[in-house]
Amino acid sequence: MEIEIKFRVDFEETKRKLESLGASFVGEELQEDVYFYLPLPKLLRVRNIENLGKAYLTYKEIKDPGRNEEFDELEVEVSDFDTTVEILRRLGFDKDVVVKKRRLIYRFNGFTFELNDVEGLGGFLDIEVVSENVEDAKKKIWEVAEVLGLNEEDVEPRLYRELVKGVYGP
Amino acid sequence: MEIEIKFRVDFEETKRKLESLGASFVGEELQEDVYFYLPLPKLLRVRNIENLGKAYLTYKEIKDPGRNEEFDELEVEVSDFDTTVEILRRLGFDKDVVVKKRRLIYRFNGFTFELNDVEGLGGFLDIEVVSENVEDAKKKIWEVAEVLGLNEEDVEPRLYRELVKGVYGP
Repeated sequence: MEIEIKFRVDFEETKRKLESLGASFVGEELQEDVYFYLPLPKLLRVRNIENLGKAYLTYKEIKDPGRNEEFDELEVEVSDFDTTVEILRRLGFDKDVVVKKRRLIYRFNGFTFELNDVEGLGGFLDIEVVSENVEDAKKKIWEVAEVLGLNEEDVEPRLYRELVKGVYGP
Repeated sequence: MEIEIKFRVDFEETKRKLESLGASFVGEELQEDVYFYLPLPKLLRVRNIENLGKAYLTYKEIKDPGRNEEFDELEVEVSDFDTTVEILRRLGFDKDVVVKKRRLIYRFNGFTFELNDVEGLGGFLDIEVVSENVEDAKKKIWEVAEVLGLNEEDVEPRLYRELVKGVYGP
C-alpha cells in the first residue's frame, strides 16, 4: 500500500527545509500527467517525464476516498508516451485532465518527499511511504511533517486531478 | 499499416526453405500472448517474450475483418508483463484466450518472416510488411510466398486468437 499525505507549501522554503533536514536529493522531474475519465476511487494515468525521456502507465485505487491518503497502485514503464495515450483512447477512455508539474524528489529515513510546483496551483509537498501498516505509517509521516513545520491546516486532501479540474473547468 | 498473410506450413521444412532463400535470421522468441475480450475488429493483447525478458502492450484494429491481412497497430514495450495484465483486468477487461508459440524471425528484401510453432495448432508462417500501399504489398508477399512453394490453399485467414479458441474452448 502506498500511503501519502499532501501539504500546501511554499516551494523554495520547503526545498531549504528538506536540505537542512539532511534529506538526500534523488532527482528532478518535469512531469506531464494525462488522466483519463474513470469514476473515483479509480485513477488511470499516463505520465510523461519529459526531462528523462521516460513514461509510465499507472492505475490506482484510492482506499480512503475523500481523504486520499491510501492508494493501491499498479505501474509499468512504457516505451512511448503518445502511443500509450492513443491505445487508451482507442480502448474507449476519454482524456479527463492534464496535470503539469516540476518535481524535486528527496529521500530521508524511508520516506519519499515529492516537492511539486504544479502549473496553475503552486507548491505542494507529498510525503510518501510504502507500508502495510497504515496507522503506523501515518504516525511517522506526521512526525516528520511536524519537524518541517507543517500541520493539519496545511493538508490538501484533494487530488491534483481534482484541483486542476477545479481551476481549469470540467 | 501492417500487412501480413498467414500460411499453414510444416515448421522444419519452411525453416530450411527460408535459410535456402538467404533470409537473415533475426532471433527466436518464446511468446505468451494474453488476449482480452474485445469485440472484433479490435484486438487487445499483452505479449510476454519469455526468453528475452520483454513484454509488449498491443492494440490492433483489423481493417479487413474476415480476411485479416490488414492491421492498424499500436504497440509499446512495457516493463512488466504481469502488472500490465493486472492493470487491464482492473480496468474491466476480461482475459479471453492465451496463445503460446515458439517463433523464429527472419528478414529478407524488406519482408519479415515469422515462423511459428503454435501450441496445440502446429506450424504457421506469417509474411509481413509495413506499407501504405496495400495492393502492392500483397502482390509482393505473394511473389515471395510462391518462391517458398505456398499457394492460396495454404492461407489461414483466421486469427491465432480464433484458432486457439476453437481448439480449447468456448
